[in-house]
Amino acid sequence: MIHGGDLLSYEDYFDGDLVDYSSNINPLGIPEGLKGKVFNNFQSIEAYPDIEYRELKKSIGEYLGCEIENILVGNGAMEIIDLFNLWADRVITTEPAFIEYKLRGQVHGKQVIEIGYTEDFQVDLEKLEDILSEKDLLIIGNPNNPTGLRIEEDKLIEIYKLVQSRGAYMLLDEAFFEFAPEDYDSIRLFKSDGYKNVGIIRAATKFFAIPGLRLGYGCVSREMAEKIESLSMPWSVNSLAETAGRYIFKDKEYIQKSKKYIHQERSFLLDELEKIEGLKAFNTHTNYILIRLENKTEDQIFESLLKRGFVIRKCSSFRSLGKNHIRIAIKDRENNVNFIKALREIEL
Amino acid sequence: MIHGGDLLSYEDYFDGDLVDYSSNINPLGIPEGLKGKVFNNFQSIEAYPDIEYRELKKSIGEYLGCEIENILVGNGAMEIIDLFNLWADRVITTEPAFIEYKLRGQVHGKQVIEIGYTEDFQVDLEKLEDILSEKDLLIIGNPNNPTGLRIEEDKLIEIYKLVQSRGAYMLLDEAFFEFAPEDYDSIRLFKSDGYKNVGIIRAATKFFAIPGLRLGYGCVSREMAEKIESLSMPWSVNSLAETAGRYIFKDKEYIQKSKKYIHQERSFLLDELEKIEGLKAFNTHTNYILIRLENKTEDQIFESLLKRGFVIRKCSSFRSLGKNHIRIAIKDRENNVNFIKALREIEL
Repeated sequence: MIHGGDLLSYEDYFDGDLVDYSSNINPLGIPEGLKGKVFNNFQSIEAYPDIEYRELKKSIGEYLGCEIENILVGNGAMEIIDLFNLWADRVITTEPAFIEYKLRGQVHGKQVIEIGYTEDFQVDLEKLEDILSEKDLLIIGNPNNPTGLRIEEDKLIEIYKLVQSRGAYMLLDEAFFEFAPEDYDSIRLFKSDGYKNVGIIRAATKFFAIPGLRLGYGCVSREMAEKIESLSMPWSVNSLAETAGRYIFKDKEYIQKSKKYIHQERSFLLDELEKIEGLKAFNTHTNYILIRLENKTEDQIFESLLKRGFVIRKCSSFRSLGKNHIRIAIKDRENNVNFIKALREIEL
Repeated sequence: MIHGGDLLSYEDYFDGDLVDYSSNINPLGIPEGLKGKVFNNFQSIEAYPDIEYRELKKSIGEYLGCEIENILVGNGAMEIIDLFNLWADRVITTEPAFIEYKLRGQVHGKQVIEIGYTEDFQVDLEKLEDILSEKDLLIIGNPNNPTGLRIEEDKLIEIYKLVQSRGAYMLLDEAFFEFAPEDYDSIRLFKSDGYKNVGIIRAATKFFAIPGLRLGYGCVSREMAEKIESLSMPWSVNSLAETAGRYIFKDKEYIQKSKKYIHQERSFLLDELEKIEGLKAFNTHTNYILIRLENKTEDQIFESLLKRGFVIRKCSSFRSLGKNHIRIAIKDRENNVNFIKALREIEL
């Protein structure tokens, strides 16, 4: 298990519908208005998507507050991250982190160096200073997966200055951006310098609950946008994702409602988890929670919860976490109540 | 213009709806039954696609007559071709051909060698014999784009034997397979040896008229399937393409009707084009026709036809064709009649 969301592999182990606590999707589901927009649009699949994604980029630009020339789109955020790996000489990333940062570097034959986090899951700036060199690609999840924390603003600026001074490149994977508290916005933070040596990648996948559609996007310098587009494949964003992307970012009501909902359920789950003995739930800025098991292995808890209809994410594929961590999604109240109930029933 | 289908760039030049003769999509449009299957399936986009694409591969396996273990799927045929470029030491391809064969090799830093066709658009076996070495990736369109011809069976077997003897790898891009006359089927031809050193790539894009959905697939040896999957990104086929792929290959009526229709319109257009002076239309096994202009440039004809509402494919991006070739799609009878009428009106 190196990715969540694979319910199909477990459906024979439970008599009923499994509840997916292993992938981190907005529990409110897709914006209501999207259904008509995407699904009554037969014509859009009979033609190629716009090879330049003009309307899609315009919509993303308005949402992010940046120029069209700074925008990249991809078949999920992953495709954009992959293209940056092509560009880099060497890939520096963190551990634990989304495993594809490392894998895509390896696929493209790059040297990959992983830097561990400090004990409280902060980027280890000292280690980074030792390692970072010219044309290195530094990839950091912000917030990071599975640890759940955003980099604090002053710390991020410190890292950014280091990146600039070394002539390296910093790629922030902000796929969970909208779930985090609104203390700062990287897109605005790095706008004044035209995103020199920095790229911010986001995704519609998680927040707008459309993982099946595949839509990632990023904000980078004009020069880097041109460079990355010269490496990319034509039409990689399908036309229904393109159609969706022209609608979802304008749905301010859905966006506000989702943020409020996740904030509320995050507090609820963290409070409930704190009352349970035998585990340590780490603080999070996202819609998932990393949990350390004090007495049991991930396999034992996975099986106990599977018997009760819940699929969670085991975390031993994150090398530094060993076999005693799990990650759970934050879902709707009814499921969260049932999940906590199930967790209380099992031996921890 | 290195790809067709970009009508958006030309819509200001014509007062009305442009007709796309630049991209090669089944003129019958998507299978009728697909609309309900794909478009009433909101739930499918709220979850990740199956990370192993089990049902999709089963459906493709039944359609192709090969085992699930031999099947690769991708975000369009192009993604699979791209992954093979990662694997190769060196890329050998033909010219003229779909430009992405060359570009993907270059993006991945591979040496790319292009072999010209003989005058009658046959693969130049002598040149190939001079060049082909161990771990070369030979990519050939079959039928080739824009020339339109399938490799004859005995010639294909000759090439295949050469590939085997050199320890190279042959990738046949058969994105237009279903449009071609049914004289042989590469999937059956190379089945007995388990597809050793040969991969056959096909696409739902053209024949099933779903370029917006993005669905490519291939049949390769089990070992190569494992290798290529280890290089690929998770969830690259979106869940609506996945859903479509579980339906379309079973729609035998649509498949037969489409083959018959294209055969009929191909004969009609080729006959009509033969009567027109100032151009030479080459024979084709596909749903597009390569045309040599005897007196005019591609730009002149492009503009004359644009004024009449037709967008065609200029061919100078195929280096060896120069500025006096165009490619046109084969569409429905009404459009084809109008297109021929427009062609007769302009000075050739």
